Amino acid sequence: MNRQAVFHAPDSPCCCPVSERALSLRLRAARGEIQRVEVIYENKYVFHERRRRARMRLSCQTELYDWFTVTLEAEDTRFAYIFRLYGQEGAWYFSEDGVTDTYDYKKGYYNFFQYPYINRSDVQRPVSWMEHAVFYQIFVDRFRQGRGEADKSYVNLPWGHIPDPRSLAGGDLDGVREKLDYLAGLGVNAIYLTPIFYAPSNHKYDTWDFYTVDPRFGGNGALRRLVEAAHGRGMRIVLDGVFNHVGEGFAPFRDVKAKGRDSEYFDWFIIRGGFPQKEPLNYDVFASCAYMPKLDTSNPKVREYLCRVGASYVADYGIDGWRLDVADEVSRDFWRDFRRAVKGANPEAVLIAENWHDASASLRGDQFDGIMNYSVTKACLDYFAWGKLDGQHMAWKLSELLMRNSDPVNAMMLNLLDSHDTYRFLTEARGDREALHAALSLIFMLPGAPCVFYGTEKYIMGGFDPDCRRCMDWSDGPSAAPLLRKLSRIPRTGRLEIESADGMLILRRGRYTLYLNRTKKEARAGAVTVPAMSHRLLKGEKDL
Amino acid sequence: MNRQAVFHAPDSPCCCPVSERALSLRLRAARGEIQRVEVIYENKYVFHERRRRARMRLSCQTELYDWFTVTLEAEDTRFAYIFRLYGQEGAWYFSEDGVTDTYDYKKGYYNFFQYPYINRSDVQRPVSWMEHAVFYQIFVDRFRQGRGEADKSYVNLPWGHIPDPRSLAGGDLDGVREKLDYLAGLGVNAIYLTPIFYAPSNHKYDTWDFYTVDPRFGGNGALRRLVEAAHGRGMRIVLDGVFNHVGEGFAPFRDVKAKGRDSEYFDWFIIRGGFPQKEPLNYDVFASCAYMPKLDTSNPKVREYLCRVGASYVADYGIDGWRLDVADEVSRDFWRDFRRAVKGANPEAVLIAENWHDASASLRGDQFDGIMNYSVTKACLDYFAWGKLDGQHMAWKLSELLMRNSDPVNAMMLNLLDSHDTYRFLTEARGDREALHAALSLIFMLPGAPCVFYGTEKYIMGGFDPDCRRCMDWSDGPSAAPLLRKLSRIPRTGRLEIESADGMLILRRGRYTLYLNRTKKEARAGAVTVPAMSHRLLKGEKDL
Repeated sequence: MNRQAVFHAPDSPCCCPVSERALSLRLRAARGEIQRVEVIYENKYVFHERRRRARMRLSCQTELYDWFTVTLEAEDTRFAYIFRLYGQEGAWYFSEDGVTDTYDYKKGYYNFFQYPYINRSDVQRPVSWMEHAVFYQIFVDRFRQGRGEADKSYVNLPWGHIPDPRSLAGGDLDGVREKLDYLAGLGVNAIYLTPIFYAPSNHKYDTWDFYTVDPRFGGNGALRRLVEAAHGRGMRIVLDGVFNHVGEGFAPFRDVKAKGRDSEYFDWFIIRGGFPQKEPLNYDVFASCAYMPKLDTSNPKVREYLCRVGASYVADYGIDGWRLDVADEVSRDFWRDFRRAVKGANPEAVLIAENWHDASASLRGDQFDGIMNYSVTKACLDYFAWGKLDGQHMAWKLSELLMRNSDPVNAMMLNLLDSHDTYRFLTEARGDREALHAALSLIFMLPGAPCVFYGTEKYIMGGFDPDCRRCMDWSDGPSAAPLLRKLSRIPRTGRLEIESADGMLILRRGRYTLYLNRTKKEARAGAVTVPAMSHRLLKGEKDL
Repeated sequence: MNRQAVFHAPDSPCCCPVSERALSLRLRAARGEIQRVEVIYENKYVFHERRRRARMRLSCQTELYDWFTVTLEAEDTRFAYIFRLYGQEGAWYFSEDGVTDTYDYKKGYYNFFQYPYINRSDVQRPVSWMEHAVFYQIFVDRFRQGRGEADKSYVNLPWGHIPDPRSLAGGDLDGVREKLDYLAGLGVNAIYLTPIFYAPSNHKYDTWDFYTVDPRFGGNGALRRLVEAAHGRGMRIVLDGVFNHVGEGFAPFRDVKAKGRDSEYFDWFIIRGGFPQKEPLNYDVFASCAYMPKLDTSNPKVREYLCRVGASYVADYGIDGWRLDVADEVSRDFWRDFRRAVKGANPEAVLIAENWHDASASLRGDQFDGIMNYSVTKACLDYFAWGKLDGQHMAWKLSELLMRNSDPVNAMMLNLLDSHDTYRFLTEARGDREALHAALSLIFMLPGAPCVFYGTEKYIMGGFDPDCRRCMDWSDGPSAAPLLRKLSRIPRTGRLEIESADGMLILRRGRYTLYLNRTKKEARAGAVTVPAMSHRLLKGEKDL
């Protein structure tokens, strides 16, 4: 047996409470080596005397590993447990002392695995509406101009022309509101808006004032109208929270520029020297953008200020959560405070972090609910657009990503094919609409909420920023709207099975089965045939 | 190559900041397979264009794995990195996409590993005095009666007789204070006292009043005198914080017993029914002890109450920290609050949790500084007392335990051979004093603070509770005091090397080398010979 492959960790995605009485366990071993796994468990105070056993099921396979899972339920949740592995060559115990041939239960209190007690406050509370959320991401300046009398004299980009970094196309929140029926028609029930607070840029990631909705977007009244109208249709509004940095016109930064160390806000930023200066740059910024000074969230005053912002839009405007920009560069400490502040205002407000990587350490219930799942994006690009993964490897890759986090966390992920920060997926796929349709179908089957970037349904193309931020196409051209409508009706409850057969990737959940064939020949699984470079989505035995 | 063995995780003990400018990295591979490892790294915003490389050193071997480590320093701490592994059969890249033959830097932002920015508040601040702390654990009722006029009429155990669960021997805090010179003479500079708050039992893990030091122990004045006298000698006092549960005479529980659900304290406890009852037991308790009702730390009021207790003894009495009883059964949420409260009162107050298992998830800077390191206890029993590990396997086991947590956390561990909750080590070793001396030498060499259970130096024997809690032996018999004095002078700074040669376990740090021979024949390493079943501790070339 490959002993190096055997893995389990206490108080981790491999061992986490899913209710006040239930503990979910995972055990990993090398793929194909272990025929059967049992968990041997009991209240830790009697484990030396008596134990129960439960069979674990092989629920997931990756290229390298088999993952076995079980959920234990008990009245007394002081769990002690070890594993029993049965392979071709023998059987082993697995405890904190590793893989062993024998196990001494009398000394178990030294080396059993444990989840010592399920405390109510340590059970991650999922945001219930995420289970059936279908997101649509809107870059506000490019989506729709409202019908009102708003002054649009600032607009410098005729609608439909290709944008440059300074383009202003005049989209606003009233425009979004007026298109809610359109969005509902796509099956969308949650909108993630890129930033809307007062800022000079078109993207508004350079906040000048957290409490003012940009007048060009319609001001605070437009936000209020939008949230009300959305809620009236059962739709959610999630704002983009930019708390890593601000714009250089943010009042505290202006004060620091004027007064240097004498400013009471000097230590809101990270400045080497007496005054912030741009040449050479002597303060921390986002990326290398001097106009976006980084906030020091290690400073309790900054934490307090931003927590108040976070909570107030939830409490006062009823927004349904935050997408958190550059969340991975902000202190963990701050996010713990922020979570308490926001969840205190509404426990059903969602917190979705921007972190393009394995973020499992910040998804343990104390910081974020989920992240923008760019690892899924990358897998989809590798499989659908770049041909770097075949069906089998894609099945393994998706399974691997699901094993990074617990099941409750997986259900809080925002699964996306592209965003304002990437090439558009269709462009990566060189315009291959079948690839786009297939990839959309996939993200609607995964645990977590799918997120469609505005204009995807109209086959908008675009390279890297600013090209991915072209104006919405409101013409009557071809549209993926009927597909999205269908996909939005797939329930995402129940177990997802990920398999591969005849070169295909196959996802099954309940009565729905998605067959994805990216090979150059017809493929078959059971009675189902799928043409080359095609996909089929079946409900029962009928194509959807 | 055994690909299943290759492991690294972001934001984990494998990737953690050790200062505001330095990131410590670890990479794991199967033992003996990889000749060389490099980390390829740069600011994440330029990683696609240029990179730096640093060689990692093979710093640790376990039975199954080699661990490679490096510390990266940079002005710009937005680290992106991947690994390059060189083995006999070839070379590989290792990123979030796993082990691959090639790597596409242009797409690195999707799958490099990262530590996105070192925020000041996310750097774990070690408790500086722990680096040279030598602890002595005192079970107060059994250590020493003070000389004063205190009423000892309650005493039912003549000093030196074998205790039963209800024995009261009359030890008190003045007794401890009067023996500070004795303890200083052992090289001890930190004392961990089992609980001292008002409670009817001899052990006082059943707190009736958190704000009253038990009158039998001398009352609050005696604590104040003890802390002052200790501090006057440069010694630290750490109290036992019992926050998982209370004694049934705790006023809020009495109120609940009287009023049931009408009590404002009803939800301080976890009760199924209108009133707490013992037969059948309908409320959560510690272990199965009806007289120790568990507190519900998911309740904010309980959290607030206990945080105030935690901070007040630090602020008002100047105690140097808390050992936290049954910490693993208490909510993580609570410990985060508790840490803030206590560190707010004194950032140098230490928080050492009782958790007998892998506690790495609670040692990430937001909860505890360290734990009672019972995994080291178990390893020492296996090696010195039970003969279950040979020198090589003990070297591997100790290395494995050090890889559970980051180096800064390892330095905060409390390394112990026994306690009031175990058999005495000497009893486990069937009275073999050489085994005890050798094991003591080992825990004084490890990262973390050694903790000597009272009476160990007088070779007190004892089985499980209450036998391990016998009265201190103040007679002029044989004593390990000279050994402890010597060991206490070993500096614990600098790298520890753990090896095995000729069946021995060898620990090297700076000029000190500890040779442990638990085999039945003389062993040799270089010019050094060690008799069968013996140990030698050398400073340079001289026996210490």
